[in-house]
Amino acid sequence: MLGQMMERPLLISGLLEHAEITHPDAGIVSRRCEGDIHRYTMKDAAVRARKVANLLQRWGIQQGDRIATLAWNGYRHYELYFGVSGYGAVLHTINPRLFPEQLVYIINHAEDRWIFVDLTFVPLLEKIQDQITGVEGFVVLCDEDKMPATSLPNAHCYETLIAAESDVFSWPEFDERAAASMCYTSGTTGNPKGVLYSHRSTVLHAMASIGEEALGLASTSCFLPVVPMFHVNAWGTPYSAAITGAKQVFPGPGMDGASLWELIEAEKPDLLLGVPTVWLMLLNHMDSIGKKLDSVQNVVIGGAAAPLSMIRKFQEVHDAFVIHAWGMTEMSPIGSVNSPNIHTLQLPLEQRYALQAKQGRPVYGVEMKIVDDNNQELPRDGKTFGRLLVRGPWIINGYYKNADRSSFIDGWFDTGDVATIDPNNYMHIVDRSKDVIKSGGEWISSIDLENAAVGHPELLECCVIGAHHPKWDERPLLLAIRKEGSKVTEDEVKEFLSDKIAKWWMPDAVIFVDSLPHTATGKLLKVDLRKEYENYLIQ
Amino acid sequence: MLGQMMERPLLISGLLEHAEITHPDAGIVSRRCEGDIHRYTMKDAAVRARKVANLLQRWGIQQGDRIATLAWNGYRHYELYFGVSGYGAVLHTINPRLFPEQLVYIINHAEDRWIFVDLTFVPLLEKIQDQITGVEGFVVLCDEDKMPATSLPNAHCYETLIAAESDVFSWPEFDERAAASMCYTSGTTGNPKGVLYSHRSTVLHAMASIGEEALGLASTSCFLPVVPMFHVNAWGTPYSAAITGAKQVFPGPGMDGASLWELIEAEKPDLLLGVPTVWLMLLNHMDSIGKKLDSVQNVVIGGAAAPLSMIRKFQEVHDAFVIHAWGMTEMSPIGSVNSPNIHTLQLPLEQRYALQAKQGRPVYGVEMKIVDDNNQELPRDGKTFGRLLVRGPWIINGYYKNADRSSFIDGWFDTGDVATIDPNNYMHIVDRSKDVIKSGGEWISSIDLENAAVGHPELLECCVIGAHHPKWDERPLLLAIRKEGSKVTEDEVKEFLSDKIAKWWMPDAVIFVDSLPHTATGKLLKVDLRKEYENYLIQ
Ligand SMILES: Nc1ncnc2c1ncn2[C@@H]1O[C@H](COP(=O)(O)O)[C@@H](O)[C@H]1O
Repeated sequence: MLGQMMERPLLISGLLEHAEITHPDAGIVSRRCEGDIHRYTMKDAAVRARKVANLLQRWGIQQGDRIATLAWNGYRHYELYFGVSGYGAVLHTINPRLFPEQLVYIINHAEDRWIFVDLTFVPLLEKIQDQITGVEGFVVLCDEDKMPATSLPNAHCYETLIAAESDVFSWPEFDERAAASMCYTSGTTGNPKGVLYSHRSTVLHAMASIGEEALGLASTSCFLPVVPMFHVNAWGTPYSAAITGAKQVFPGPGMDGASLWELIEAEKPDLLLGVPTVWLMLLNHMDSIGKKLDSVQNVVIGGAAAPLSMIRKFQEVHDAFVIHAWGMTEMSPIGSVNSPNIHTLQLPLEQRYALQAKQGRPVYGVEMKIVDDNNQELPRDGKTFGRLLVRGPWIINGYYKNADRSSFIDGWFDTGDVATIDPNNYMHIVDRSKDVIKSGGEWISSIDLENAAVGHPELLECCVIGAHHPKWDERPLLLAIRKEGSKVTEDEVKEFLSDKIAKWWMPDAVIFVDSLPHTATGKLLKVDLRKEYENYLIQ
Repeated sequence: MLGQMMERPLLISGLLEHAEITHPDAGIVSRRCEGDIHRYTMKDAAVRARKVANLLQRWGIQQGDRIATLAWNGYRHYELYFGVSGYGAVLHTINPRLFPEQLVYIINHAEDRWIFVDLTFVPLLEKIQDQITGVEGFVVLCDEDKMPATSLPNAHCYETLIAAESDVFSWPEFDERAAASMCYTSGTTGNPKGVLYSHRSTVLHAMASIGEEALGLASTSCFLPVVPMFHVNAWGTPYSAAITGAKQVFPGPGMDGASLWELIEAEKPDLLLGVPTVWLMLLNHMDSIGKKLDSVQNVVIGGAAAPLSMIRKFQEVHDAFVIHAWGMTEMSPIGSVNSPNIHTLQLPLEQRYALQAKQGRPVYGVEMKIVDDNNQELPRDGKTFGRLLVRGPWIINGYYKNADRSSFIDGWFDTGDVATIDPNNYMHIVDRSKDVIKSGGEWISSIDLENAAVGHPELLECCVIGAHHPKWDERPLLLAIRKEGSKVTEDEVKEFLSDKIAKWWMPDAVIFVDSLPHTATGKLLKVDLRKEYENYLIQ
């Protein structure tokens, strides 16, 4: 027997309609590629999103067609989020940090019909234009007088196109499971793989991410997403902002410490969101000018583990609580959040930091478990390591045009992460499955080692990899970048580590390097390093 | 093209599974019919809900079968919420305040197979037992030693039954649109009508009600729902508590001021939820003992309009913010919430009170509009009155076994309320369509008049109805109950009103009465009064 409730689909256009009527004055502030600061409201965004939809209609775009963006966080990108998906087309957000051959691959693989591109990235596309001939045309996100001379075929100015369109458009209704947007993973090996989000998954994810046990957004919030709209939908915040009416501050291309601080000082966000490397730059900048992030109450850190030293620094220098979060492109992306909750808030500071270093508890909607090599569930004792599997309505069930099912196990998705889960359901990422170091049958977490080492005041960045060892099979090597002018030695680093890690975790060698390789989303790229150093302990 | 996201159904059992793993220690405190205070945790509730499911299985209950409860807010009722719906049966919560003939009607109409009943209500069922012979048996919610001698056939003790069941049960998966629970409206005319909620509607409603723009629940919250679990699912809080891990304090049968205060003093809830009449009793009790509701930060008031005087009193005497909310049985029930938000918080106090007296803004998921007699949408100008229509995934699309479609208009539900909506989407209930007074072609809100009048310090309760008038068609009559000992006169009441309402709204007569009739959900029952007084102004 079915219930007798209205069958209303959960659609992205509905988020915008709610926002336009309920939060018409919610602010949207953007640093533009043009260099200036732009301000408007949710109402304005809604009006312009309808113009985008009319544009797509004029072009003859069909439901499900892919429309790509290559853009920073900004108001025009925001309009496209709603205009494209609301129309029924699929918004393909392209990560400009991919290698040119990856860009070519994903644009062709997605069969993008049009690409909306920020001024910054026009040269990027010009370089590969001969390899993406399936694209019908390009729209440059700029004012008419800033329109560049470009070799891109069929190139248009966004503002000129939009100005000609009507702002009257009736959003279509369709199956909530219809594709809404897509994002490619920047895998460390092989071609990027496409993740196809649905309207349902996007809306449920946004609803789940709002509560205080998650990001804690409200109409009184003002947040600055440094996490990019070109990757995993800026953690879903464009959508959750529409539900809540929170004010949004978009940094555009200005991701360096000075630019971020300028925006923070002017707009006074209480919430920042981004990956650790961005915060390293901001914290260093704040140190150098000797100022405090006064307005900031919470900093959501995800995409890579938040080091304890960073959690401490935000709290003790800037009075800002670090909300550690974990997710994946394949998860829309939010999986777990370590929000200030009934557990955290009552702990003594040092214990609290230790808890904050965990990746938090699953938000409602996400189920997690850790399993052994036979996919048998392991205990939630906070100690046992296992492969982390997840399940839920905003988690992938297959990659786009890709038959590989190796990550899908009995209805669960294998995250490729190794984790512990404690009795209160706090999950702690120990490592990527392929990065964990197997020393004499026991596992050593390369991430924990990196985070302990980077706490050393003279080290800038650390990377731990496993190297072959005649007796123990694998042993950890620590590759480290020293801060400018530092002469810290291997022995000093080991001495520093000695009271922070188990004895048998001590790296067999500390190797100082000048740089470390990263993926397009800012993660350490260990594949090549592992090859380079695999026989370091045998030689 | 569909997205490639997992098709996970939104089920009530999933809420409980999340709660058990993520919030095992969340507290549940109940005043029992047995008289004492009972405490346990979310983990305990989950374990016992599985025992309930095993019991239903033993009985041969099929998916969709109706299982009824007749119970106060308490932990056993909480277990049944999840055990019955999680199993796939339909939880029919019966309102004990219905008249006996209405009870008979709905039990037979719903075809309830079993009834779980609190000690308090056993006599109620005994009286009608010969008319509800379709019911297979009764389970009394009490300890074995409290089991009453009863004439009810096939009567069992809940604790005895539960003790015999295993706590291992695998919740079934099924269509999220399956029926989960039902509740009958206590209409003022005709038979009660059944509203059949689905798993999907219940879960979406719970998700939407959590954010700070709605009820603002978190693991740090402790709330006391006086709003009953036997009517409109205690505003969905049993479910939202499972998502957030908020502590719940259940008042059981103790709804009087003294009992509520005893519980508030002991458990220190920060959030109370209930209808105005309950708060009147609590506020009077607090006055009489001269104490303050220290722990309480917010009071959610819905089910009937929150008078300005009550909003003011909570704020000024108890430092508690009134969150005015509006909803209906047909809406699961939350439609709009007037949460402390970016608008409210920045207003001077008097203006803020005036805004708080509105029923708030729709939560995301609910769409609202006001229409004229031809169902044409009216402007959101804060002045124009219109019939309020709503739409959304937790709103009814038809009554249970009832062919009447008169409330369903082009996919919208006609609430039967008359309202204004302002440019920020704040909705204000002016009246029930049938209670609004039509004086010379203009509308007078009986609710606004009642709320103004009840602000008089010597009046306890007020009721305004329209009476025939030779010239104006209808004019308002004010029926009022004086506080004990008061000798306030008609002229003094009119004098009091004179600067609070438009001149032409002044009641033509003030009539003092000893009592006023109410519906089973505590609303003024105006039908009979209208009949009694219809010719009062003509005689
Ligand atoms: N905050 C409120 N102010 C005025 N009327 C309300 C409010 N909340 C609920 N109601 C009335 O109660 C009706 C729903 O009753 P019920 O289905 O019994 O919950 C609504 O249609 C309104 O007429």
